[in-house]
Amino acid sequence: MTSDKLDLIFNPNSVAVVGASEARRKVGYLVMKSLIKGDFKGKIYPVNPKRSSVLGMEAYPSIKKIPAKIDLAVIAIPPKHIPKVMNECVEKKVPGGVIITAGFKETKSEKGIDLQNKVKKIAEKGKMMVIGPNTFGMVNIDSNLNASFTSEFSLLEKGKISLVSQSGGVCHLAMPYALRESIGLNKIMSLGNRLTVDFHDMIDYLAEDPNTESIALYIEGLENPKKLMDAAKEVSEEKPIVAYKAGKAEISNQASLSHTGSLAGKYTFYKAAFRQAGIITAKNVQGLVCKADALAKQPPAKGKKVGIITLVAGLGLISSDVCESQGLKITKFSRKTNKKIRNLMPPLTIRSNPVDLGIIADDVDKCGKVIKTVFEDENVDCVTINYLYSWSEEFLKVPIQKIFEAYKETGKPLTVCLEYPEDIWDKYKSELKENNIPTFSTPELAAKALAGLVKRGEILEKHNQLNNMR
Amino acid sequence: MTSDKLDLIFNPNSVAVVGASEARRKVGYLVMKSLIKGDFKGKIYPVNPKRSSVLGMEAYPSIKKIPAKIDLAVIAIPPKHIPKVMNECVEKKVPGGVIITAGFKETKSEKGIDLQNKVKKIAEKGKMMVIGPNTFGMVNIDSNLNASFTSEFSLLEKGKISLVSQSGGVCHLAMPYALRESIGLNKIMSLGNRLTVDFHDMIDYLAEDPNTESIALYIEGLENPKKLMDAAKEVSEEKPIVAYKAGKAEISNQASLSHTGSLAGKYTFYKAAFRQAGIITAKNVQGLVCKADALAKQPPAKGKKVGIITLVAGLGLISSDVCESQGLKITKFSRKTNKKIRNLMPPLTIRSNPVDLGIIADDVDKCGKVIKTVFEDENVDCVTINYLYSWSEEFLKVPIQKIFEAYKETGKPLTVCLEYPEDIWDKYKSELKENNIPTFSTPELAAKALAGLVKRGEILEKHNQLNNMR
Repeated sequence: MTSDKLDLIFNPNSVAVVGASEARRKVGYLVMKSLIKGDFKGKIYPVNPKRSSVLGMEAYPSIKKIPAKIDLAVIAIPPKHIPKVMNECVEKKVPGGVIITAGFKETKSEKGIDLQNKVKKIAEKGKMMVIGPNTFGMVNIDSNLNASFTSEFSLLEKGKISLVSQSGGVCHLAMPYALRESIGLNKIMSLGNRLTVDFHDMIDYLAEDPNTESIALYIEGLENPKKLMDAAKEVSEEKPIVAYKAGKAEISNQASLSHTGSLAGKYTFYKAAFRQAGIITAKNVQGLVCKADALAKQPPAKGKKVGIITLVAGLGLISSDVCESQGLKITKFSRKTNKKIRNLMPPLTIRSNPVDLGIIADDVDKCGKVIKTVFEDENVDCVTINYLYSWSEEFLKVPIQKIFEAYKETGKPLTVCLEYPEDIWDKYKSELKENNIPTFSTPELAAKALAGLVKRGEILEKHNQLNNMR
Repeated sequence: MTSDKLDLIFNPNSVAVVGASEARRKVGYLVMKSLIKGDFKGKIYPVNPKRSSVLGMEAYPSIKKIPAKIDLAVIAIPPKHIPKVMNECVEKKVPGGVIITAGFKETKSEKGIDLQNKVKKIAEKGKMMVIGPNTFGMVNIDSNLNASFTSEFSLLEKGKISLVSQSGGVCHLAMPYALRESIGLNKIMSLGNRLTVDFHDMIDYLAEDPNTESIALYIEGLENPKKLMDAAKEVSEEKPIVAYKAGKAEISNQASLSHTGSLAGKYTFYKAAFRQAGIITAKNVQGLVCKADALAKQPPAKGKKVGIITLVAGLGLISSDVCESQGLKITKFSRKTNKKIRNLMPPLTIRSNPVDLGIIADDVDKCGKVIKTVFEDENVDCVTINYLYSWSEEFLKVPIQKIFEAYKETGKPLTVCLEYPEDIWDKYKSELKENNIPTFSTPELAAKALAGLVKRGEILEKHNQLNNMR
């Protein structure tokens, strides 16, 4: 029921913008711009009692006066007017709303708290699902819906990661990063003060969403973490969930209270709860996006034995450090593998794990064979590859065909560090991405993303064991 | 003496390329290309016994036959021919060389070790400073010298950071990152097997180099770390040194041995030694570059009390986490500051530290005043600011003039997280950089870079105390 409603909100046929404006500094203008620039295919109804049209579209004096069914109301008007508009939404049976306006519980003022309680009662009575207040909005790349005050979210490629954030700022940090790294996203939203839509609602909904393959959460603090953990415990059987929890610092608890009206809480508690709920953790926004990217594209690892292949020895060392610190095991290759690699590479090279391709780097065919050999080793559960541009474009090639073959034939998960100046290797990046192989700009991120896939395998195994016991 | 020689090698008037070639897959071709594309202003002498010219330049059958003084010989020929060429260099009194060729000590083979010893003896006897063998080369952006096999290093902006790396790969990782983030570099080199030029030589040299403001080290492992630590202890009185030490993983020790012929060694030992030597540490290549960037541009902090200013609350929380974990203290503002900010911001906002500018974000003047107020607080030693693009270009402006004023008037160090989609805020980034204010794409990196400046202040204070005791 909740999920059906959320599905309608994220895929609406009609959107009303309450507070729609042509004044370029008003949020009501920015939301209109986002909807239009995002190329929303449904109908947009501006609501503004002072105007008969907004940006060339017929405007209505109130939401009640719109002569059509409204699936979603985006509300960007001063706080004091919001109860009235909410009552009208309920009267009109609008199933969902996004209240962008701030000035509620997060202010810690009696007035703000009272107002939020009042609006919440209206929403609950009317069974209306409301995202916010105090949110930048929400975006569904899938349905060309940008119901936010930042039109640039529509620049994002369509992907399979959905990001549910307690902070709009984090969405604005993830967006340029994902753009630069060509990481696609699906749904992006900030919960804000979580009037009636909270993490667990979103997790339940995204579990059913066929366009979401991994769920990324940014959490500051929750009044009732149990609801999130319960939802995650169930959903993590089906879909990977990765979370970044901020608020480790003492001072952060105060800041979080002021931000979205909740205590950040003890980090150690969250860490334990995440583990029990089958949630994979990340330590910053980049890590969150990268792990979610790998989890959306790659299968879980069947074990933690990693094979590291590197074009340059230094990066193999870095990968080893990160893999070990993430709990992976740098595997010992089988005798068969060692023999095969010995036949492919000159004697004076590093052929143990990590395998250093340096000296055969210009022989794309040989490099490909070494990579395939590592994939095929029975002692290897998962692979990370570092390819760094050097020499020249014509000289050094990435053996992507062999990488595809090895990956497809063995089904073992893979992450790639691919870094290069300017746009020289964009073609490889695109091809790898098209084949669902995630690439990252550092060996750390590639190793961390791989660790997410190993963790995912362990979570699924735990679920299986529990299910078998039942 | 050593430093004078290194200065000549990094600023040569003439370079011989031994193994210069027109075969596009040969390192001798790639080095020629790098020198030419890097727009080297001195004279280039190709050496190739089989050709009378290379790429339109007169070629010489041997280095001895060049009718001019040679300041630097770049050597890219098979290992077995290197002793002969080295003898010729010594005979011709060439002061410095870069041996790019691999196949020496790093192979762990008797043959490789013997060859390295042989070449080392020749260099030592001839008092020749040799970078390598087993290096990608070296680059001095300052003198348009790209003596490496990757011409793209010459795309780098000229800056004040010099990077001394034990791994060429790490240079190839730092370069695209620095390009993307518009971080300038000065000298970049991989020590490789450290025939006669080691970390301590480079530290001593860069201490005297007027174009280097901060020294960044990437270290895998050393036979004799004491030399580095002794040099650093002295130099860190004058110039900041920041180091990233890889090789925490057990397996890394083996990989490092194979890579540049040395044990990575216990990380804990290095950590303690770095502290004693006044070396600031970083945990990855990005952190290394970012800390070095802040250290090259900003003054040290006089204390660890940080003021955090943020356009979006979520990022203030992240900054707080990172600042605390890096040992900074999130300061309590003075009553005067609180009063001033109270007058600038509406009551319903977060005005404590971190200061959340969110609700006044569209008022560039007010934001500037708040920022200035924080800088002026007597309880604030250093400042980090997070500005994230949202809304629209015309609506949201970064108060950079006020930031410059506040920074210049108080002299307190500052780092900025500035992130935005596409090129929207490039103008701000450039202006901040022109004014020596380093910007980073995440709040973590900005906070870590600031922590480097706090650490730098502590190191200088310790030096002062020791000097006063003398």
